Amino acid sequence: MAFTDGTTQALVAYEPKNGRPDIRLEEVELRKLADDELLVCIVAVGVCHTDLLFATWPADQIPYPRVLGHEGSGIVQQAGSRVSRASIGDSVLLSFRSCAACKTCKDDHPSFCDQFAALNYAGELNAYTATDSGKQRVHGGFFGQSSFARVAIVKESSVVNVSGLVRGEDELKLLAPLGCGFQTGIGTVENVASAGPEDAVVVLGLGGVGLAAIMAAKLKGCKTIIGVDRLPGRLALAEALGATGVIDTVNKGVEIGEEVKKLNNNDGPSVTIDTTGNMDLIRGAVQWTANRGQIIIVGVPPPDALFNLHLIEFMQTGKVIRGSIEGDADPSKYVPRMIKWYREGKLPFEKLVKFYPVTMSPRSSSGKVQ
Amino acid sequence: MAFTDGTTQALVAYEPKNGRPDIRLEEVELRKLADDELLVCIVAVGVCHTDLLFATWPADQIPYPRVLGHEGSGIVQQAGSRVSRASIGDSVLLSFRSCAACKTCKDDHPSFCDQFAALNYAGELNAYTATDSGKQRVHGGFFGQSSFARVAIVKESSVVNVSGLVRGEDELKLLAPLGCGFQTGIGTVENVASAGPEDAVVVLGLGGVGLAAIMAAKLKGCKTIIGVDRLPGRLALAEALGATGVIDTVNKGVEIGEEVKKLNNNDGPSVTIDTTGNMDLIRGAVQWTANRGQIIIVGVPPPDALFNLHLIEFMQTGKVIRGSIEGDADPSKYVPRMIKWYREGKLPFEKLVKFYPVTMSPRSSSGKVQ
Repeated sequence: MAFTDGTTQALVAYEPKNGRPDIRLEEVELRKLADDELLVCIVAVGVCHTDLLFATWPADQIPYPRVLGHEGSGIVQQAGSRVSRASIGDSVLLSFRSCAACKTCKDDHPSFCDQFAALNYAGELNAYTATDSGKQRVHGGFFGQSSFARVAIVKESSVVNVSGLVRGEDELKLLAPLGCGFQTGIGTVENVASAGPEDAVVVLGLGGVGLAAIMAAKLKGCKTIIGVDRLPGRLALAEALGATGVIDTVNKGVEIGEEVKKLNNNDGPSVTIDTTGNMDLIRGAVQWTANRGQIIIVGVPPPDALFNLHLIEFMQTGKVIRGSIEGDADPSKYVPRMIKWYREGKLPFEKLVKFYPVTMSPRSSSGKVQ
Repeated sequence: MAFTDGTTQALVAYEPKNGRPDIRLEEVELRKLADDELLVCIVAVGVCHTDLLFATWPADQIPYPRVLGHEGSGIVQQAGSRVSRASIGDSVLLSFRSCAACKTCKDDHPSFCDQFAALNYAGELNAYTATDSGKQRVHGGFFGQSSFARVAIVKESSVVNVSGLVRGEDELKLLAPLGCGFQTGIGTVENVASAGPEDAVVVLGLGGVGLAAIMAAKLKGCKTIIGVDRLPGRLALAEALGATGVIDTVNKGVEIGEEVKKLNNNDGPSVTIDTTGNMDLIRGAVQWTANRGQIIIVGVPPPDALFNLHLIEFMQTGKVIRGSIEGDADPSKYVPRMIKWYREGKLPFEKLVKFYPVTMSPRSSSGKVQ
């Protein structure tokens, strides 16, 4: 739907009811574009666990109602006077914002920008006005994009221009999750773990991030690649994408560490990537990952989750615990890199993506804009 | 004192009294040498916090009485039939044991040997018999050496042959702590942190390990090197050894993170090495270390210390928590490397070492064998 009159449709998240998201497809008015912003006609947007998290995030930190969505892809419809990254008609993939000024940004690690939370989670008031709900002001600017909308106001720093890289609108839709989920899985293997042929990699949880990690481990030639999940379809897909072994945890009592050893020459893995945020799995991983191995926390744990690390025991092992978001990637460089690999057949994203139209009725609690 | 009749003097640690070490200088009989052991006439031995820790370690895990000491240096007096590392008359520095068979050992990271605890802490019964105490059997084999003794039974895997590298007995005495304390400080900077000119390194605690880390950071050309302690003499020594700044924590309320920023261009450090095991300091370091920075736990925390890591907060920063012991060094290669640097004037160990004769009376609680 083209933007003609300053209004569009968006999925507006209202204050949760009984802890459950309350998301409604509504007509909203867009505010005027700033100099460093673009108006992007969204063709597709991924749904990420972080969207769900912020659909119930406390109101005292970010006001409701709010528009979420942070894996958008689309076509530029307008560009502010100071925008240089893209022009009207360009194809863009949307990612996170960074300040470009702090030391971490200057060192080319923008996902650990000092201002990350303020720039991406906090968003900004008055991006939209919900006309269906009596002119309520709506919070926008989530990851500088709030792309759960037909047309989105996007900060320039969230934009990756993929004109000339992407072949047509179908591919642009397919690649929408590159800006967050796929980048997180792939970048974690390449940039964070620096995994290579000598590594044995275990991926806990085979959603979009986990399966992207499996693909990346295959691409990097890791000698052992083990996927862990409890859904047979995901396990089969992991094997098709390059996992050398899978562990089905649907039956309680499965000792993941023991199963990993069976699949890895009686050793623990050198790299364990948790994409689940499940504390029991993380606790286990710290135990059964090999000495000197890395445990990389990628899945979002519960907001108040504390991990009780037994320090003496831990230090003796030489193990490493590290957190990571967005695969420690600079999207402006990493998205083109991933597209190149996709083009070479090394990252078959099409096996991971399903499309859903936005057909939700008001008050239903799931959906995906296309 | 030469070994002539199968007896020697040793510092024997008896079961603690009221939680305090009970260490006595006693005459002991040595058992027969095994094929893979050497008899070493100890010329000096460092005293490490780990010795104190094991002087009060629960009796149900390792029996009392026991002979501690794990930074010995000396001259080989006898060698078992299967020993190839050193012969009678060779100068040796003593370090930790490793199994040489597990994957970590085979990958040349013996300090994270799967059998480390069993081989180094557990020791073995009947190494000595304490004749002064009514023929009590005494536990030996601590770090394969139990070098708080005039003459020690040493496992071959603990031996580094430094004949031809060390010039005379005075130097052999001076270099005794290479096998643990100095190796830990220096190896942590080089092998664990991989610190270089771009790094800002903070060292918490300026004992032997901490000051060795300061020297190593200087050697590696780190742009900022900050020492933290509460003893003026140590702070002055850190500056003399290359610290670009020091923080005196003797006054309560010193905000270390703020002071570090003042000394480092308003940034947190990229590497923080804790040598204290103090939980408050470690908690602080996880906060004020720069995003993507490493917090390396080297100092031994209290045995039951749990670190409550707030996972979401932590993962957003990209920080790394890692434990390390013995500087992730292979002593047979790393001790000669450190001696080379010492010879080049880059590691002035003589500024860190003081000698004490063993003059303790029975029942006193400190001493050093020379």
